Amino acid sequence: MGTTMGNPTYGVHSEVGKLNKVLVCRPGLAHERLTPSNNDELLFDDVLWVHNARRDHQDFVLKMESRGVEVVELHDLLAETLGVPGAKQWLLDRKITANEVGIGLMADTRAFLESLDNATLAEYLIGGLSTRELPSEFRPPYLALARESTTGGEYLMPPLPNTLYTRDTTCWIYGGLTLNPLYWPARHDETLLMKAIYEFHPDYTGNTVWWGDPEQDWGRATLEGGDVMPIGNGAVLIGMSERTSRQAITQVATNLFEAGAATRVVAAGMPKLRAAMHLDTVFTFADRDLVTYYPDIVDGIQAFSLRPADDGGVEVTEEKDSFVDVVADSLGLAKLRTVEPGGGWYAGERQQWDSGNNAVAVEPGVVFTYDRNTHVNTLLRKAGVEVITIVGAELGRGRGGGHCMTCPISRDAVEF
Amino acid sequence: MGTTMGNPTYGVHSEVGKLNKVLVCRPGLAHERLTPSNNDELLFDDVLWVHNARRDHQDFVLKMESRGVEVVELHDLLAETLGVPGAKQWLLDRKITANEVGIGLMADTRAFLESLDNATLAEYLIGGLSTRELPSEFRPPYLALARESTTGGEYLMPPLPNTLYTRDTTCWIYGGLTLNPLYWPARHDETLLMKAIYEFHPDYTGNTVWWGDPEQDWGRATLEGGDVMPIGNGAVLIGMSERTSRQAITQVATNLFEAGAATRVVAAGMPKLRAAMHLDTVFTFADRDLVTYYPDIVDGIQAFSLRPADDGGVEVTEEKDSFVDVVADSLGLAKLRTVEPGGGWYAGERQQWDSGNNAVAVEPGVVFTYDRNTHVNTLLRKAGVEVITIVGAELGRGRGGGHCMTCPISRDAVEF
Amino acid sequence: MGTTMGNPTYGVHSEVGKLNKVLVCRPGLAHERLTPSNNDELLFDDVLWVHNARRDHQDFVLKMESRGVEVVELHDLLAETLGVPGAKQWLLDRKITANEVGIGLMADTRAFLESLDNATLAEYLIGGLSTRELPSEFRPPYLALARESTTGGEYLMPPLPNTLYTRDTTCWIYGGLTLNPLYWPARHDETLLMKAIYEFHPDYTGNTVWWGDPEQDWGRATLEGGDVMPIGNGAVLIGMSERTSRQAITQVATNLFEAGAATRVVAAGMPKLRAAMHLDTVFTFADRDLVTYYPDIVDGIQAFSLRPADDGGVEVTEEKDSFVDVVADSLGLAKLRTVEPGGGWYAGERQQWDSGNNAVAVEPGVVFTYDRNTHVNTLLRKAGVEVITIVGAELGRGRGGGHCMTCPISRDAVEF
Amino acid sequence: MGTTMGNPTYGVHSEVGKLNKVLVCRPGLAHERLTPSNNDELLFDDVLWVHNARRDHQDFVLKMESRGVEVVELHDLLAETLGVPGAKQWLLDRKITANEVGIGLMADTRAFLESLDNATLAEYLIGGLSTRELPSEFRPPYLALARESTTGGEYLMPPLPNTLYTRDTTCWIYGGLTLNPLYWPARHDETLLMKAIYEFHPDYTGNTVWWGDPEQDWGRATLEGGDVMPIGNGAVLIGMSERTSRQAITQVATNLFEAGAATRVVAAGMPKLRAAMHLDTVFTFADRDLVTYYPDIVDGIQAFSLRPADDGGVEVTEEKDSFVDVVADSLGLAKLRTVEPGGGWYAGERQQWDSGNNAVAVEPGVVFTYDRNTHVNTLLRKAGVEVITIVGAELGRGRGGGHCMTCPISRDAVEF
Repeated sequence: MGTTMGNPTYGVHSEVGKLNKVLVCRPGLAHERLTPSNNDELLFDDVLWVHNARRDHQDFVLKMESRGVEVVELHDLLAETLGVPGAKQWLLDRKITANEVGIGLMADTRAFLESLDNATLAEYLIGGLSTRELPSEFRPPYLALARESTTGGEYLMPPLPNTLYTRDTTCWIYGGLTLNPLYWPARHDETLLMKAIYEFHPDYTGNTVWWGDPEQDWGRATLEGGDVMPIGNGAVLIGMSERTSRQAITQVATNLFEAGAATRVVAAGMPKLRAAMHLDTVFTFADRDLVTYYPDIVDGIQAFSLRPADDGGVEVTEEKDSFVDVVADSLGLAKLRTVEPGGGWYAGERQQWDSGNNAVAVEPGVVFTYDRNTHVNTLLRKAGVEVITIVGAELGRGRGGGHCMTCPISRDAVEF
Repeated sequence: MGTTMGNPTYGVHSEVGKLNKVLVCRPGLAHERLTPSNNDELLFDDVLWVHNARRDHQDFVLKMESRGVEVVELHDLLAETLGVPGAKQWLLDRKITANEVGIGLMADTRAFLESLDNATLAEYLIGGLSTRELPSEFRPPYLALARESTTGGEYLMPPLPNTLYTRDTTCWIYGGLTLNPLYWPARHDETLLMKAIYEFHPDYTGNTVWWGDPEQDWGRATLEGGDVMPIGNGAVLIGMSERTSRQAITQVATNLFEAGAATRVVAAGMPKLRAAMHLDTVFTFADRDLVTYYPDIVDGIQAFSLRPADDGGVEVTEEKDSFVDVVADSLGLAKLRTVEPGGGWYAGERQQWDSGNNAVAVEPGVVFTYDRNTHVNTLLRKAGVEVITIVGAELGRGRGGGHCMTCPISRDAVEF
Repeated sequence: MGTTMGNPTYGVHSEVGKLNKVLVCRPGLAHERLTPSNNDELLFDDVLWVHNARRDHQDFVLKMESRGVEVVELHDLLAETLGVPGAKQWLLDRKITANEVGIGLMADTRAFLESLDNATLAEYLIGGLSTRELPSEFRPPYLALARESTTGGEYLMPPLPNTLYTRDTTCWIYGGLTLNPLYWPARHDETLLMKAIYEFHPDYTGNTVWWGDPEQDWGRATLEGGDVMPIGNGAVLIGMSERTSRQAITQVATNLFEAGAATRVVAAGMPKLRAAMHLDTVFTFADRDLVTYYPDIVDGIQAFSLRPADDGGVEVTEEKDSFVDVVADSLGLAKLRTVEPGGGWYAGERQQWDSGNNAVAVEPGVVFTYDRNTHVNTLLRKAGVEVITIVGAELGRGRGGGHCMTCPISRDAVEF
Repeated sequence: MGTTMGNPTYGVHSEVGKLNKVLVCRPGLAHERLTPSNNDELLFDDVLWVHNARRDHQDFVLKMESRGVEVVELHDLLAETLGVPGAKQWLLDRKITANEVGIGLMADTRAFLESLDNATLAEYLIGGLSTRELPSEFRPPYLALARESTTGGEYLMPPLPNTLYTRDTTCWIYGGLTLNPLYWPARHDETLLMKAIYEFHPDYTGNTVWWGDPEQDWGRATLEGGDVMPIGNGAVLIGMSERTSRQAITQVATNLFEAGAATRVVAAGMPKLRAAMHLDTVFTFADRDLVTYYPDIVDGIQAFSLRPADDGGVEVTEEKDSFVDVVADSLGLAKLRTVEPGGGWYAGERQQWDSGNNAVAVEPGVVFTYDRNTHVNTLLRKAGVEVITIVGAELGRGRGGGHCMTCPISRDAVEF
């Protein structure tokens, strides 16, 4: 991946500036496969009515488009990428291996996949391929070892239902991006698909990659986009969570500082709780100086500031102030306005769980949220925010909201 | 409870005959209290958007009414009951005890509850009462022991969110009913509320109770209505499950046989699986000779027939035939028509989980089901059944469908 | 149970005074039944090598006897009790019921049990009876319903492996005792066996029972002896834990105060943690003014003092001081000496888990503990305590030590 | 690693032939760190009394030595290896990385480790290094990010308690060995330590490696030595289990066939159960034609035979016979003699859990087992086997016995 050409209009310069271009991924084959007995293994919290999830996702896309956002979709981008010479071979070389598919099944599996059109192949790459789906002409005797009789068959390519949350896999941070090593091994291939796009798709080649590469092993250095927020003023917030480690944060900070792309990284040391999976599950921006947050968890965050050291390294400061105040300071603001979930103790906890604090802005003061979190939506409106709701009955079952389901590729800065 | 007066029009004589009167319970305060950190303890699978759950439940009620069913609601019945002289005292004597509320809190808690109107009191009896909800004039120093500072406070009366599933607590079996000892101690008070109604409410006194009494300890003899189906022809199906034990089934069968109310009880020995909680989660009737069932579980059922023995006891026969064939035989039919979930392995398992086999009939060939189980709904329609759908997005989160949410009080027999 | 005759030498007047008489229960049939697939259900943490557990338990008994303690054993007492006219019938009437055994199996099960000698019957009453153990002449056709083919068979009388911890079931508090309603329903029958002994065995009839009766339902009022310590000076410590509720504590306190048997009950409000199951898992006495305790948990205890109120009720004081200081005050001491587990963070947590703080004294300054907790044992010795070790390799697997395995029946007071 | 020099006396040619040399690993620092709150994360089933575990392990070693076995120990080998020029640097380059330790802590951590003698460094490499153990002169400000205040600190090098089970990490299969990619990422570094030894230690360089390399990512191709048995006659048994995948087995088989090192691999398709973790937890050899096995699981194994195909690939046959009979056939025997756990259903399950079937032979008919499994030990003796027992009270808590704790490096063939 070169570091010079790139699309100069790409880049994310704030959390609330005008959103110009965004990547989403529609629910599909991977979600059709979810059942109560496999969803834990596939790292998805619940099963969905996929038809309605697709309908509600499409509604979300249309509403963003009507606000002037260019929305691109992962299946589409991947299918287009597969049409670029060399791309299909590159990707299948990395997916159809002895380690993943098994020696005796590689030839037939690859032959079957190569017989497909690009859109269908993209669907399988994201949705997974079960041994049961190999047509009879591609079923070698070796297949006996895969023991199809056991419940659910075996996957030759695993389903990737969490692609729905495009936020996690890649992050644009100001003028470049990261290709994230995700926490769970079962999600690593999500980043591989993104690398194929950024390597081959003509609209996406040539950009600066700050850090990460799905073809390397990053050990405990894991990063998920739900923890990353380039909020402007040279600052970047990164949740230090179960999913995003200090080993990753310090590497990203070092690279950003070296490139002069940021001047301060605020690491948010989060409590290890299921409800505090990512920073954006408890804290998101709704306007240039307004956040919605969940105090029960955010009040427990220990903030650290990372800044370029004189010797070229990184200097760490353990902050004394509350996280919210440190964020305000990093933006050069005296204070942030805040909106809590509201509705009392029971409704507060329930709304946080239902992604009530997971708002995504399309411009300052205009956010998308789920309809079901009525208390926090009302409080945001009372604070002057335009709240556009989307249906969360199905989409919300994987524990992610509008912020999780969007990966901004181009977003303007805001003035502070 | 006398055994002579009773309402002669009450009684349930089949699973699919004309449904005349049914008991439901609308979502309410108990569900407002559900959060991700307490729902397991409250025996509810997920949290709800209560507003929409209430809307969808009301839609269900209206649709049943438009089909000529008289629908009565638990909060309403309970409030009416509380207005009957002696009823409020009877119930509070049993709820506000040293063992449940604690010595130092009894007087104030009872005084607060007695200060309420009947509708509000009914809401608390079903929805629970937290120490935090005691107004300041009812807060004795003793309250310190309840340690309100710990997450969620402490309940003086526990929330009963599973009242939504009125099916479980009482069962009409032909001309009498059972007051069921439920499996989980946390649900026992549901049956106590029903006993108050059948003891005091003028419309419900004087009926025959075959078995059960919430004021006794039944040990391992537990029975839940989701396992009980008086299918007609003198036969009763009872799932022998995690929740319903042989100790209960044999007592119920003995009493039914003694009264001449049934001639055969088919005990369905179910595998111990979470998905096979009750018989009606895997097997329900849609027409006089048509069932929808989930073969992955039902094919594993071992059927036993219980019949009156010559000596006045019960004779047990271990059946050789499949459960479905034993049911057909018990109805005097050569065979039952069957509808599986459909849609393939993934969708099949998912639909069973989403209560796809939990249909409730309002007359032969007319059933209510959730909208999300599109495959099984289509198959039922192709089999000639009129399928009326209700929205399951919220109501279905507690793992129960139309059959679970209805307790028939009066249903006609059908001809075989 | 009368309140007048009783054995005037019975009574427990301190935690460390001369121990005259104690009840234990040897490992046996119930533990022979433990397997990795049933131990959770039987509420036992691990499986044992029963032979060695019995050897180590016998060593514990012999060592106590050599210190002048009269040790009585539950199997023996129960067998003797069964020989008292009326006792066997009383107990079998309560164990062999339609609710527990099932209608069709009652006659044969009872006939089999009545055919046994008293020692064997006592072994089954404690160790449980599986349907598989019914000899062929006692196997009615009904047995098919019990579905023996499923793993592990079905119990007609449940195994009671936690009888090993005689401390929990009954507590002598000064001159009387409690018959405790235990937290888990699966343990309730332990108290029933004790009631049989105190009702029928000539050495144990006629004592004062402060509270509790296994034939009643106590709802949320549960009490376990591991939480109860009559420490002397009219004071009683009671852990308010997962297992012991304020509903029980206030009733016990009321009865003690009414009888003038105690002047202060210190309720120890414990954090809800698995490691903090009972007060005696984190805090026990080793000498008149010396305790061994686990600060990580004990420092989080909120103490409350209950004292007789002028109006005859109970007055509750929320204490400001640390629990250890409140205990000292209740004894009229300026301060308690304390011994922590020692050995650093890892060894400290591990020793607490291995019952390192669960010492039992036979006289002031002489305690029994497990051999494996070498750090805390050394620290106790350095504090002047005589520490007699017993082997914990097997006995400790159920998460209880010397304090849990002993129920003092007669213990002298100490001077303060 | 060359493929020519090697030590010609190394190689494992059977499961029961004379054992000449074996690798073990004594309990140590890693086990000192185990607590009830971290043992799951560290993949160890229980906490140990480490002192006694070491004593019992030493007893095991001495008894093997008295039988003429040369026993080498991992800490010792590793310390010796660290003394070889280049070895320490090679290993620290791979352990002290930005991805594992974090940018700001690398220099100090490495400086501290390099300040240690080889034996102490080996202890930390196996036992782990916590941030708390960095002496004050090696504690940079960066350390704040590691958040030591949270329970247990953070590991700069993770503890590897499962090194106790040397069987898993490397396998000698006839004249060469595998460097296994283990199933759990948290165990991967165990194989890295072994690679250091086989790369640098003069006694171990130059051997043939059939497959595996801890510096590569093997994806779903995972192999653990507890599943691998080179039983002689050109046959190798490999359990296809949760831990060992067909993707690995087919690669190993291909390499063995290509080298002419084996003529048949029997893949044992095991049910996915916790108790069936590895093949050697349910099936081991005690004599040339005698196995001890657990029928409840082994009877459910589906055997597959892999043989060299004419075209150079691997031919797969799904076997019709029972696994035990397939094994006999692979050895050219008409039948195997078998010994079950014995003692009835409860004791059988308990003994399997306590590694009762996990025997290791030092010569034909002479095996080591745990003392606690008295039933199976007696049955083995009745079958003519000399059974030498070791104490399992502590060592057995990690769910592995003599077979798991030994990695044979040199073992003779036997005649069939």
